[in-house]
Amino acid sequence: MTMPDWIGVDWGISNLRAFAVDTEGKVLDARTSDSGMGTLQPSEFEPALLELIDPWLSAGRETPVYACGMVGARQGWFEAAYRPVPCRPVSERGLTEVRTADPRIRVRILPGLSQSDPPDVMRGEETQIGGFLAIHPEFNGAICLPGTHSKWANIADGEISAFQTFMTGELFSILSKHSILRHCLCDTELDRAAFFDAALTTVASPLRPVTELFGLRAASLLEDCEPDTASARLSGMLIGQELALARPYWDGRRTAVIAASQIADLYAETLAKLGADILQVTAPEATLSGLKIAAGHAKAA
Amino acid sequence: MTMPDWIGVDWGISNLRAFAVDTEGKVLDARTSDSGMGTLQPSEFEPALLELIDPWLSAGRETPVYACGMVGARQGWFEAAYRPVPCRPVSERGLTEVRTADPRIRVRILPGLSQSDPPDVMRGEETQIGGFLAIHPEFNGAICLPGTHSKWANIADGEISAFQTFMTGELFSILSKHSILRHCLCDTELDRAAFFDAALTTVASPLRPVTELFGLRAASLLEDCEPDTASARLSGMLIGQELALARPYWDGRRTAVIAASQIADLYAETLAKLGADILQVTAPEATLSGLKIAAGHAKAA
Repeated sequence: MTMPDWIGVDWGISNLRAFAVDTEGKVLDARTSDSGMGTLQPSEFEPALLELIDPWLSAGRETPVYACGMVGARQGWFEAAYRPVPCRPVSERGLTEVRTADPRIRVRILPGLSQSDPPDVMRGEETQIGGFLAIHPEFNGAICLPGTHSKWANIADGEISAFQTFMTGELFSILSKHSILRHCLCDTELDRAAFFDAALTTVASPLRPVTELFGLRAASLLEDCEPDTASARLSGMLIGQELALARPYWDGRRTAVIAASQIADLYAETLAKLGADILQVTAPEATLSGLKIAAGHAKAA
Repeated sequence: MTMPDWIGVDWGISNLRAFAVDTEGKVLDARTSDSGMGTLQPSEFEPALLELIDPWLSAGRETPVYACGMVGARQGWFEAAYRPVPCRPVSERGLTEVRTADPRIRVRILPGLSQSDPPDVMRGEETQIGGFLAIHPEFNGAICLPGTHSKWANIADGEISAFQTFMTGELFSILSKHSILRHCLCDTELDRAAFFDAALTTVASPLRPVTELFGLRAASLLEDCEPDTASARLSGMLIGQELALARPYWDGRRTAVIAASQIADLYAETLAKLGADILQVTAPEATLSGLKIAAGHAKAA
């Protein structure tokens, strides 16, 4: 294989993904491991990275590595201070350099973004948003990144003016695994009719989940509500609540959904039913595009 | 010790509490173990009970045992079918007899209550509510039982006409233990000012927690928000949301808070600040009073 010009790294809590990229921005190879930031002590990051990218490195040559995500958190490899919004999502400035023992790599971390009022933070999503905007440079509107901690960002003239995190995915996960509801849920294929009914009902009445949550358990005891229906209703309630509260972002505005998992299709379909003007891109595509900005900018700097 | 006339048992998910009671309803002795319903297979209930109450039993004499709580759930010792509301919370009818191997005990389980629209269930709280009404027979109004699954019941002429479960305590617990918020919370003494501020703000704007939940984490990262303050704000948000949605129960009406833990004081104080007319009793007192009805009624039947 041709040796890469630079290496892009998407380093989240659960996974580590690396891309070997040539001078034209073409991906020569991609490798993934489960050495997520959440499983590592600071001293373990460099070995975890080298284990993955060693085949791409040459003795006597320094390969630049650009990493985004939770790797730059306080509990990560090395803290990359947040950049405050409003700002462009990915900047040529402010890359945080990490010292490594191995001379074959030069590692720089893309900083996350912060907002002071109301307080909010993101790490990794800014790279996807920046990457999306590199592909769609004229885009103005809202960007939605569904996930464990969903993010909504408002884009004006290439900058993020404001953003908002919702704990939707994590709420679904901990309710499914750790609450009394675990007895009445399942993770088989989604009951789509139950999902959209719950989602649209909740968008119209966003407080309903507060009183209806335990009703999922009661309905399974009293009415033999099927686990796939209960799971779909729970998911619909939580996503519906997010969409109701995020309405100022998407209502009457162009909205891009950056899809990291199948759940993003449900966001996009629900938003379309609500009349939103939806554009969908995949998260890996957006991340790589964002890392390219950092790599290009860093070379230019 | 005098041998008891009957034995009352409060058998929840985590604990087993037994009371030895004489003919006058006086408690001669009380014992507790951690053999909660959640830890036992059906065949293990009788041994767990006997281990606790053996000193109170006499050979050749059958002692009645009245048990309430999750012991009567489908996953418990023996399923005691729900009684539908509206109804009196504790009835002389409908006790579910459980066959035992030991001839020294005769075990009867108090059934829980169900509601069909919206679907809801309770097990154990009906005994406390019935016990409270035995102490306050003229009471009309709302009864609040704060807890893992808080219950609100509407009382009219000695009957429960409707009730509503909120997963407030469990949400606090799983968010504290299993979500990203665990990094910014603690369980030291409560920051009362932060609690009441969050609770009253949320009662006025009950959707705020949906957007402010992740803000607790962001505030700890960006503003060094102290863990005791963040915990108090989370607790205040969740309890405030419950009180906002339970407003039809308590607003302008007599409200009794049955207190199983210190958190009940915070419910009572918040409700008092909102102008509710509050009466507080302790859960053990209410449970014992409810078990006495079952014991008395059962004897009369």
